Amino acid sequence: MTAQNENRTMYYGKGDVFVYRTFVQPLTGLRKIPESSFTERDNTIFGFNCQISLKGEAFLSSFTEGDNSLVVATDSMKNIIHRQAANYQGNTAEGFLKFICEVFLDKYSHIDAVELTATEVPFDHVLVPKGEGHEKSDVVYRCSRNERATTTIEVKRTPTGSKIVKHSSGIVDVHLIKVKGSSFYGFIQDEYTTLPEAQDRPLFIYLDFDWEYSRWEDGTGADPEKYVAAEQICDIANTVFHELNNRSIQQLIYHIGIRILERFPQLANVQFKTNNRTWETVVETIPNSEGSVYQEPRPPFGFQGFVVTQEDVKQKKAADSTVGASR
Amino acid sequence: MTAQNENRTMYYGKGDVFVYRTFVQPLTGLRKIPESSFTERDNTIFGFNCQISLKGEAFLSSFTEGDNSLVVATDSMKNIIHRQAANYQGNTAEGFLKFICEVFLDKYSHIDAVELTATEVPFDHVLVPKGEGHEKSDVVYRCSRNERATTTIEVKRTPTGSKIVKHSSGIVDVHLIKVKGSSFYGFIQDEYTTLPEAQDRPLFIYLDFDWEYSRWEDGTGADPEKYVAAEQICDIANTVFHELNNRSIQQLIYHIGIRILERFPQLANVQFKTNNRTWETVVETIPNSEGSVYQEPRPPFGFQGFVVTQEDVKQKKAADSTVGASR
Amino acid sequence: MTAQNENRTMYYGKGDVFVYRTFVQPLTGLRKIPESSFTERDNTIFGFNCQISLKGEAFLSSFTEGDNSLVVATDSMKNIIHRQAANYQGNTAEGFLKFICEVFLDKYSHIDAVELTATEVPFDHVLVPKGEGHEKSDVVYRCSRNERATTTIEVKRTPTGSKIVKHSSGIVDVHLIKVKGSSFYGFIQDEYTTLPEAQDRPLFIYLDFDWEYSRWEDGTGADPEKYVAAEQICDIANTVFHELNNRSIQQLIYHIGIRILERFPQLANVQFKTNNRTWETVVETIPNSEGSVYQEPRPPFGFQGFVVTQEDVKQKKAADSTVGASR
Amino acid sequence: MTAQNENRTMYYGKGDVFVYRTFVQPLTGLRKIPESSFTERDNTIFGFNCQISLKGEAFLSSFTEGDNSLVVATDSMKNIIHRQAANYQGNTAEGFLKFICEVFLDKYSHIDAVELTATEVPFDHVLVPKGEGHEKSDVVYRCSRNERATTTIEVKRTPTGSKIVKHSSGIVDVHLIKVKGSSFYGFIQDEYTTLPEAQDRPLFIYLDFDWEYSRWEDGTGADPEKYVAAEQICDIANTVFHELNNRSIQQLIYHIGIRILERFPQLANVQFKTNNRTWETVVETIPNSEGSVYQEPRPPFGFQGFVVTQEDVKQKKAADSTVGASR
Repeated sequence: MTAQNENRTMYYGKGDVFVYRTFVQPLTGLRKIPESSFTERDNTIFGFNCQISLKGEAFLSSFTEGDNSLVVATDSMKNIIHRQAANYQGNTAEGFLKFICEVFLDKYSHIDAVELTATEVPFDHVLVPKGEGHEKSDVVYRCSRNERATTTIEVKRTPTGSKIVKHSSGIVDVHLIKVKGSSFYGFIQDEYTTLPEAQDRPLFIYLDFDWEYSRWEDGTGADPEKYVAAEQICDIANTVFHELNNRSIQQLIYHIGIRILERFPQLANVQFKTNNRTWETVVETIPNSEGSVYQEPRPPFGFQGFVVTQEDVKQKKAADSTVGASR
Repeated sequence: MTAQNENRTMYYGKGDVFVYRTFVQPLTGLRKIPESSFTERDNTIFGFNCQISLKGEAFLSSFTEGDNSLVVATDSMKNIIHRQAANYQGNTAEGFLKFICEVFLDKYSHIDAVELTATEVPFDHVLVPKGEGHEKSDVVYRCSRNERATTTIEVKRTPTGSKIVKHSSGIVDVHLIKVKGSSFYGFIQDEYTTLPEAQDRPLFIYLDFDWEYSRWEDGTGADPEKYVAAEQICDIANTVFHELNNRSIQQLIYHIGIRILERFPQLANVQFKTNNRTWETVVETIPNSEGSVYQEPRPPFGFQGFVVTQEDVKQKKAADSTVGASR
Repeated sequence: MTAQNENRTMYYGKGDVFVYRTFVQPLTGLRKIPESSFTERDNTIFGFNCQISLKGEAFLSSFTEGDNSLVVATDSMKNIIHRQAANYQGNTAEGFLKFICEVFLDKYSHIDAVELTATEVPFDHVLVPKGEGHEKSDVVYRCSRNERATTTIEVKRTPTGSKIVKHSSGIVDVHLIKVKGSSFYGFIQDEYTTLPEAQDRPLFIYLDFDWEYSRWEDGTGADPEKYVAAEQICDIANTVFHELNNRSIQQLIYHIGIRILERFPQLANVQFKTNNRTWETVVETIPNSEGSVYQEPRPPFGFQGFVVTQEDVKQKKAADSTVGASR
Repeated sequence: MTAQNENRTMYYGKGDVFVYRTFVQPLTGLRKIPESSFTERDNTIFGFNCQISLKGEAFLSSFTEGDNSLVVATDSMKNIIHRQAANYQGNTAEGFLKFICEVFLDKYSHIDAVELTATEVPFDHVLVPKGEGHEKSDVVYRCSRNERATTTIEVKRTPTGSKIVKHSSGIVDVHLIKVKGSSFYGFIQDEYTTLPEAQDRPLFIYLDFDWEYSRWEDGTGADPEKYVAAEQICDIANTVFHELNNRSIQQLIYHIGIRILERFPQLANVQFKTNNRTWETVVETIPNSEGSVYQEPRPPFGFQGFVVTQEDVKQKKAADSTVGASR
């Protein structure tokens, strides 16, 4: 039986392949930006949850005929990721994924493409006593369940060698609240409207974002000056949220996106997925206090999806200069 | 500021909008198939978890300018789904989603498209005493956390009226085990292979599937003879799994897909996402028993993605007849 | 260092030890009750998630001195449960746990007590074609994530042999809704009251229950006529919920408890933990329909804890006969 | 019907009552300890997930008779917690819980006892630009899903006023790894042993702990010098883990407990629940690197439960001085 459709969905692979390597060389030499004090990753623990998919027309007979002779067992895929992790020479997730994809393409000539995604398992420093003060422990770390960096890459075999056909970096599960300085009013009022307008609300947001480099090579960290660390992206989000007296999540993420692309012209775009978890007020005014009492929002929750590109940066600059000129 | 890119990702909406309606008219008149005794849904409880997204160029200024004047609050979206659920006259999830999408397009002229996804909240019958025996209760139901039917639809405004631009139906989280009658051997053996071959393994699979109708109108249930119930799809999966002495999940899902498309020629394709949870053997032989002792598989878990189309059915028939002729 | 406190909390063990055994002999001969058509468990798949704890003063030095010489590695505990599962001759969870506890006490003389808890991994029958109709498959099963039976037992070493010091059986995560025939009114009204009274509400409850035998031997299944199957308990709950025009969850569980203890006099008590998930009404009246539209309840959720004993059954009978006599 | 058993389990209440109050007065004046640089909580966001239970013989008729006349709706309980949160004058979770319990006992004379548990919803500082450097934002916070402080208290009505009958403070979900400097060997070797001995393993632990004050008044924070902050407890755990070349989790938690009780003599005991998540080695040696490659541990996971008391501190001191004297 021959493949009747080159573009049919056909892949198989292994998910939740956790791999940890200790004492990987630190990532240093990052470009400093005003919003962030982050300048290096120590990489004492380099840990990822990986998902790998193999693609190739050669796999069709495993479905139609139950012919396993070209099947790389998914258990073997896991072994390859685990064992080859020892051979990676770099210091970024992006570089690691590219390295692993090429191991697969080199080893198995019947594979057409490899897609690999990794989510960081983040570890925070803890402080321990040093003299009268405290310093970072060099052996004890706290595993964090907060925001995690992500990367995805797809490498395809072509007649002229392997080619990156998909790549992005990102960070997920950033949960931020601004206790005052956010509003939401002026939206459509009709017979379905029950949400009250808010001149000042405690805006609580969940953010996931991804960014793409204009040249994917910049994302490998080979030239750290061109590399964009997820930690810096977070710091930009924190800063713009702090500074902007925002009118909606929509407006906020547009401004975060613009700032990211201004700081990192090597990025082509930033993609946002956001979610609104803003508390509801129970007691607005407390005598002798600036505070209020709130409860969890009632489900369901609103969400937004948006992409900001370098073209938006250009248009905003043009618009801003027009406004400036006309003042 | 004008939109520089009609195709940019830009949407917003509301997730986890649970809506329940009681005593909806039963769905009857389904076509009977040999694999299934399922012939009607009583619809006493018609319950869904919905996710709605609105799309439209008009929303751009809410991002770039923080201009909320065209924003339908996501709280209002929830209210529309809840209140309009009372006005739906049909008896399928697919019909319900189409009805709601059109409410939005009719009400708000600046919306370009509406995407709506629903996951069933399933309720099982319980038995209660009746005379000497038992019958189904007409008021008490058990809420199930097992497999759930899903539907997604996107309706777009066009100069000649609204148009369905995306639609599929499916079922997720089907967890099946076959205790004997499955093998997995003959796969690639190399330095990365640690998985032992299995002549008879207890194959435990997680299945998610989606199917698309060739004509989406068949999916609304208006003509129940053309409608494909998720319960029937499950019964086909159970039956093929029972009958086929399978060599791999790949082979199994190909055969399930072929059988579904044979039974329901009104479907264009079936899409599979599967996951392998096969137990590991601890004690193979127990004296005086056919049984064995097993433990949970060690993570990570393998997965497969595959689409079967009516073209595959045609090719298989051609191949089978060739084989038959040459015998 | 000697133990200064015999009663200090000190234990260690292994959780989430999943063990499956196939083709265990069926459990038959259960007593029939009017509320249930359940009469036997086929035990083709006998699967449990176990948690084991070892206790003993001998373990103190492993804490205070880091002396591991009397430590049974928790990995070994898992191996014992897995391998000894092959040697169990009975057909109930309760009997299996007792068997395993005694393996530990026999093998390691420095252990004072073993506590073992198991939660069933339930598998449902699927139907497959048989002639013109359908029958239960003997090899394919559906793994269920709905209610699960549980058992816990603690066996202690005493000078005169091992002794059961704790035992109970139960079922958790029973999720039931009654679409009409439940009320809740007449509760305290004061300045904190915002809940409206309900003459007829769609009562949705989560139930967990446990029961204790007066003589623990009755719980092993050795005499199946004395054994109480969790499936029968569920059927009683369904039936009482169906029959009783209830005024509250409190009243409902009292009546379920009384009925269980009437049907099974060998039980000493029934313990309830319940949770209220009742939907909120959005559209009360739909033209030409008995139905309404509801939404999920707003968190948080109310709960109840209650125990019903054979003494309650006696008191209720006495009270009922007084009422009857005075009529 | 009268209560036949004063000690029967009978309670009802509300779970997952989330309450947030902003700009509560900071907690300052904590005692400094060498292991921690933590000296104050800013309390800008004072957030908790509460669970409340009411107890009282007066509630029996709501079960047996369906008589709701003395039932405080659980919805009202939620309202009381939310609204009274505005009236709390202190700055600790422990003080807040005691305040709320007394509101209930004062308001409803038929309640015998109130049990209230709270789990902190933790918020971390984020840094924003300030001049050439960075400072903590005073409005933007990151919500954390890492370790959370907990508190539980039960207040009972007595003829001479309300009395605290249960109280403890704690912290849950502390996830720590020490990449080198931990061993586990010398345990029992027999036919069930498959775990290899480890001279140096990357010990990954989950810790939950609770502590009780000798005088519960010390836990309210009224005298901050006597109050023990969960943050300080964590820092002690980090420090002891860093310093101790440990032989097992058992030994580690004993030493953490001793250190906590030495630093805080106002505590009566510390209770531990721990879990072992130690990685498995895949590649032990990497050329030119101190590192190794590891994978996730195979489930199931071992656990420990242990209590350390001031009596243990005394015994250890006595034992240590004996050892010292004999040198």
